[in-house]
Amino acid sequence: MPVDVQLLDAQLLDGRSRDGGATAVAHPNIALVKYWGKRDARLVLPYTDSLSMTLDVFPTTTSVRLSPGATADEVTLNGAPAQGEAGRRVTAFLDLVRERAGRAERAVVGTSNTVPTGAGLASSASGFAALAVASAAAYGLRLDATGLSRLARRGSGSASRSIFGGFAVWRAGANTDRDTETALDLASHAEPVAVGDLTPALVIALLDAGPKAVSSREAMRRTVETSPLYRAWAESSRDDLVEMREALRHGDLATVGEVAERNALGMHATMLAARPAVRYLSPTSLTVLDTVLRLRRDGVPAYATIDAGPNVKVLCRRSDADQVSEAVRAAASCPVVVAHCGPGACLHTGNR
Amino acid sequence: MPVDVQLLDAQLLDGRSRDGGATAVAHPNIALVKYWGKRDARLVLPYTDSLSMTLDVFPTTTSVRLSPGATADEVTLNGAPAQGEAGRRVTAFLDLVRERAGRAERAVVGTSNTVPTGAGLASSASGFAALAVASAAAYGLRLDATGLSRLARRGSGSASRSIFGGFAVWRAGANTDRDTETALDLASHAEPVAVGDLTPALVIALLDAGPKAVSSREAMRRTVETSPLYRAWAESSRDDLVEMREALRHGDLATVGEVAERNALGMHATMLAARPAVRYLSPTSLTVLDTVLRLRRDGVPAYATIDAGPNVKVLCRRSDADQVSEAVRAAASCPVVVAHCGPGACLHTGNR
Repeated sequence: MPVDVQLLDAQLLDGRSRDGGATAVAHPNIALVKYWGKRDARLVLPYTDSLSMTLDVFPTTTSVRLSPGATADEVTLNGAPAQGEAGRRVTAFLDLVRERAGRAERAVVGTSNTVPTGAGLASSASGFAALAVASAAAYGLRLDATGLSRLARRGSGSASRSIFGGFAVWRAGANTDRDTETALDLASHAEPVAVGDLTPALVIALLDAGPKAVSSREAMRRTVETSPLYRAWAESSRDDLVEMREALRHGDLATVGEVAERNALGMHATMLAARPAVRYLSPTSLTVLDTVLRLRRDGVPAYATIDAGPNVKVLCRRSDADQVSEAVRAAASCPVVVAHCGPGACLHTGNR
Repeated sequence: MPVDVQLLDAQLLDGRSRDGGATAVAHPNIALVKYWGKRDARLVLPYTDSLSMTLDVFPTTTSVRLSPGATADEVTLNGAPAQGEAGRRVTAFLDLVRERAGRAERAVVGTSNTVPTGAGLASSASGFAALAVASAAAYGLRLDATGLSRLARRGSGSASRSIFGGFAVWRAGANTDRDTETALDLASHAEPVAVGDLTPALVIALLDAGPKAVSSREAMRRTVETSPLYRAWAESSRDDLVEMREALRHGDLATVGEVAERNALGMHATMLAARPAVRYLSPTSLTVLDTVLRLRRDGVPAYATIDAGPNVKVLCRRSDADQVSEAVRAAASCPVVVAHCGPGACLHTGNR
């Protein structure tokens, strides 16, 4: 399923393009077993394993070109200079790449997202996956897909999964008191997941493309620190992961969907109990959840998942995607996008 | 605050009315620290203490008249014969009263509710509180308010609190392996709560007066048995109770409201994680929650609580009740009722 990993590895043998720049493309992923909660914020190590499907929509394209004379990175996001936190996160990420590559040049970074930024549609996953691939190439860091996944993780946890196409699991990594920082870093990366005969669609209801009232980073931190329900959810999520892998292996869409839906609702439940509560579910999110229940009652296998935003994504058979889209659109009066399994991150071939 | 307990005790000295019948009135209560989860379904013993405010709206009036020649109880609910489960629960309750009174006569029971039945507005609380008071009197059971609270508990857990006016706490009662059934029963009853200078209003948004898709009994059972988050909520609810009592004692509406809101959201969170999920929150419920957040941002202390139904109740200062009502009505396009602290259950004086 992760069709592009080999291509990616072959491209990396070349490393940088002739002008010392590199361009990479990555797609968002939607977790079916969620990443929610960091046990180490600096290394971006999660409490639990998570599992996702990389999409074939909303790619992010990022180019990194070294700028030897410059004293600061120059970051543009969709054509405009990156503001505040967004720019700082890119520079912090590049500092990590420079440190590993033993180089000091600043860079010119251009990113174009095709997904609304900050609306719970994983723009940071595709963004940091593309940045990891492009910056590693530009700075001459030779990393395989696993290494790129570890690197992308440092920018945004879920980006570790967007290095891979199809379905991927991000390992939290074990954590013992004796582990060095290097050992902790090495243990936590994504990897492809074996999948049986399963070609689902994901119907995405675009309920609100505006920025979020609470960032997912803040929501995650607040949940871990204040929600009395967090630990219990993290425990149950471990069981969900085992069941999800088994269901994927057997191509069992109904179980994949059931586990995904309960895992997502559980995650939102932990937030609802945070202090103060974090509620990403909007009235229209619930309307879509009601529609999903109705579809199931009508015999259409459809299952909802929701990330840190109001948008609801509905997992269904590819052959049911039109019917599901129509039902969601009619109920929620919102634009709907149908996604399928997409490719892993790759260097733009124009670089060579 | 529980102004009617004394009156109730005085009335009980009289016991039954001249025709062997008795009529009682009780009001619903809204829990600020929720009852959610039975540790003993037959004795109706909860996992946690709960705390509520008895309302001055939606009274239930119940009359019980002994019917010596009859072979079955005759139960009417709002003028119509009680159907199925509702009738069976009344008869099971009367069997308990008869057993304790050492009597066998069947009864004619008439109940009128002024609150929509089964819509999460605690019609079973007012209903079984009124039935407990009326049937104890009719069968000559001499019980004080504590005893009536224990008795009402057997009909519906939350009914134990509606015996008292104002604020009441229902003790779960300790539970050791050596406890006899009698000891367990004796330990679990409601009692009045000391309250400082606090005269709040409760603005009730009547979002849906229809019957529920999942009964609260079934939702409670399913949550306890299947939600991985239930135990953690029950633990946190113990802390909420301590903080709530302290806030009530100091007449601190903001803390009362904050604790009530987080306790209710936590309860709904446990249900969201049940398998299958139980979701009483409707799209319009969330619209009201959004309105409550907006009111708080505008400086109006307003806090939401929600029971096993879509209706949202907003706790606020009595002086803010009009503004809060107007905001809720405008946002949700629904009828709104303003309630205050109401009286405990009492025998209808017409009986004597």
